[in-house]
Amino acid sequence: MRRVAILGVGLTEVKEHWDKSLRKLFVEAATAALKDAGLDVNQLDAMYVANMSSGYLQGQEHLGSLLSTWLGAKGIPACKIEAACASGGVAFHQAFLAVASGLYDYVLVGGVEKMSDAITSDILTALMMADDQDYIAPTGVTFVGLNALVYRYYMAKYRVRQEDIALMAVHDHEYAANNPYAQFRNRITLDQVLSSPLVADPIHLLESSPIGDGAAALILGPLERSKGEVVVEVAGSSVATDNLSLQLREDITTMYATIKASREAYRMAKVEPKDVDVIEMHDAFTILGVINLEDLGFAEKGKGVELIKEGEIEIGGKVPSNLFGGLKARGHPVGATGLYQLIEVVWQLRGEAGKNQVEGAEIGLAQNVGGVGSTVSVNILRRVK
Amino acid sequence: MRRVAILGVGLTEVKEHWDKSLRKLFVEAATAALKDAGLDVNQLDAMYVANMSSGYLQGQEHLGSLLSTWLGAKGIPACKIEAACASGGVAFHQAFLAVASGLYDYVLVGGVEKMSDAITSDILTALMMADDQDYIAPTGVTFVGLNALVYRYYMAKYRVRQEDIALMAVHDHEYAANNPYAQFRNRITLDQVLSSPLVADPIHLLESSPIGDGAAALILGPLERSKGEVVVEVAGSSVATDNLSLQLREDITTMYATIKASREAYRMAKVEPKDVDVIEMHDAFTILGVINLEDLGFAEKGKGVELIKEGEIEIGGKVPSNLFGGLKARGHPVGATGLYQLIEVVWQLRGEAGKNQVEGAEIGLAQNVGGVGSTVSVNILRRVK
Repeated sequence: MRRVAILGVGLTEVKEHWDKSLRKLFVEAATAALKDAGLDVNQLDAMYVANMSSGYLQGQEHLGSLLSTWLGAKGIPACKIEAACASGGVAFHQAFLAVASGLYDYVLVGGVEKMSDAITSDILTALMMADDQDYIAPTGVTFVGLNALVYRYYMAKYRVRQEDIALMAVHDHEYAANNPYAQFRNRITLDQVLSSPLVADPIHLLESSPIGDGAAALILGPLERSKGEVVVEVAGSSVATDNLSLQLREDITTMYATIKASREAYRMAKVEPKDVDVIEMHDAFTILGVINLEDLGFAEKGKGVELIKEGEIEIGGKVPSNLFGGLKARGHPVGATGLYQLIEVVWQLRGEAGKNQVEGAEIGLAQNVGGVGSTVSVNILRRVK
Repeated sequence: MRRVAILGVGLTEVKEHWDKSLRKLFVEAATAALKDAGLDVNQLDAMYVANMSSGYLQGQEHLGSLLSTWLGAKGIPACKIEAACASGGVAFHQAFLAVASGLYDYVLVGGVEKMSDAITSDILTALMMADDQDYIAPTGVTFVGLNALVYRYYMAKYRVRQEDIALMAVHDHEYAANNPYAQFRNRITLDQVLSSPLVADPIHLLESSPIGDGAAALILGPLERSKGEVVVEVAGSSVATDNLSLQLREDITTMYATIKASREAYRMAKVEPKDVDVIEMHDAFTILGVINLEDLGFAEKGKGVELIKEGEIEIGGKVPSNLFGGLKARGHPVGATGLYQLIEVVWQLRGEAGKNQVEGAEIGLAQNVGGVGSTVSVNILRRVK
């Protein structure tokens, strides 16, 4: 396999983009990524679009042809990759394979999701398509409700207090304050989190990632074509799945797919968790942040909150995490989220993270989750000069 | 790049499968493909699912996790690939890249579409998602209507008679009679075609591919792992796109994406059109069969009907085409169609095509189209022993 580098990144602010359509958001991010890479659109060899719900929410499929045309990259191979909320990370893996294979040199992977102009019931329906329509959806449970089951079971099994788990949201907002692309840049207190309305008991509103619109894009290419002072290589890239629904799992507090995907990515990158300088992980709800820290190998089961309480996920800690606001505060434009994470890791490795910079970061990891741990992508990036 | 072979194929009959869900159809085809390859499900390294409309018609996304679980391939990387009616061919290209890259050995690509239990207006809406929702769908034109524009313009530009174009449907039904997986196995006459109701003037009902359900799967792997008496290699694999909508094209009677994808595939396979022994191409409407023959390089523009009239697309002709019924009679279960085509080509190269066998076929081509020529995949297979 050829070695693959990230040559450019581009993104839009995450927010309610009432004035921009799905295609405009995508083109804005993709054009910025091309500019960052110093490439002309005519140099692109292929394109992947990460998106979950354009069919249901915009009535629009066939995003590969549509968005390559609107970007001005007429004729290139292009298609949509869907893996629920993990679409971004999984599409990145396809782009990685496309370059690694040697068939394509310059490949754009862009994620986009436009949700805020749909009615709420349609958004809930769209998100619930991530779980089983024949066996789970008919019970009436929502996607938040499924995560609430995990949350409550986790607290009971490991005797962990909600006050500690909910700290994840406070952390996210603290760092989003310095991220101009984040959906929420206000700081919040633990009291505010715990006194916010319950969405699905025990999950509070301020423990939940918001609905929003956004697009993010990266350009991948052969390592040897990488220019610039800093070169960021894709050191490990992996995807794993699990049983789609919770009732088929042995233990709903452990995400088997995170364990499988991360161990594979560590092996490819020849690193261990202790070597990782910074991570972006998929904390769609506070409890998932805790579980991710454990399943990625940074804490024993039941001990994830210790890392949070002891400041180990802050800059200067053992595993600086979600330093641009995570899903809670940067936002979670579904199909684009995994690519926002990767861009944030690139910023860290390039030393462009501003106030949220982890000094000297060389190795970063991005974990993107679809469903309640049903699909997980783990990508490990490394600064190679 | 590693050389890639097709190790196994499996499929279901195309029909109205009232008694089988989307997941059952997929598992049936995938299990058959595994058996044909002599592989256990635990040997699979990755999986791609080709599908267009499960989100809108079944309310189900996240098919990668769902279907890998139901197949029994727990944990493997899996995702959905969507490129409208070209989803199958495009997903095959991703599976090709996955094996060619060297990261994965045994990769399953399976397509599935379940349409017949949706109401007609929903099916029309779902199919129209292949074209532009902001600029075209609001005009009220249907997907058949767009093809009708192409049909009428083609007849005027090249002074070709509908009686000749419509022969494509007669041809398809003739060969489907020997295909136990085909949706329609009755023979039809030209008179029947031309006297059938108009769906969108000038397209008659019997010139249009039907709505149906089906699933088809192939197993790809490294060429050197291929066992058996006959080895089928993926000699060329290419995808191209074009402007999504007709009003952006210079000439709506030529499919630029077919020209681009086929020339690239010929180049990879080091063959020319005259070397190809058999093809399966995307004749969703009779006119498309004619245009495909031209754009694939088998006839000059305006001369495609000559091949049909002179028997050149029959067994024994210059370019035996759609020998299992094409989209008109084998059927067109959208996301699976491109994989049905590839399986039919594999049968030819293996000498398993029964009454429809092209004797000694060594090189076969499958062309799969999404939208009105907006995405085209061309895959060329070669028998290598």
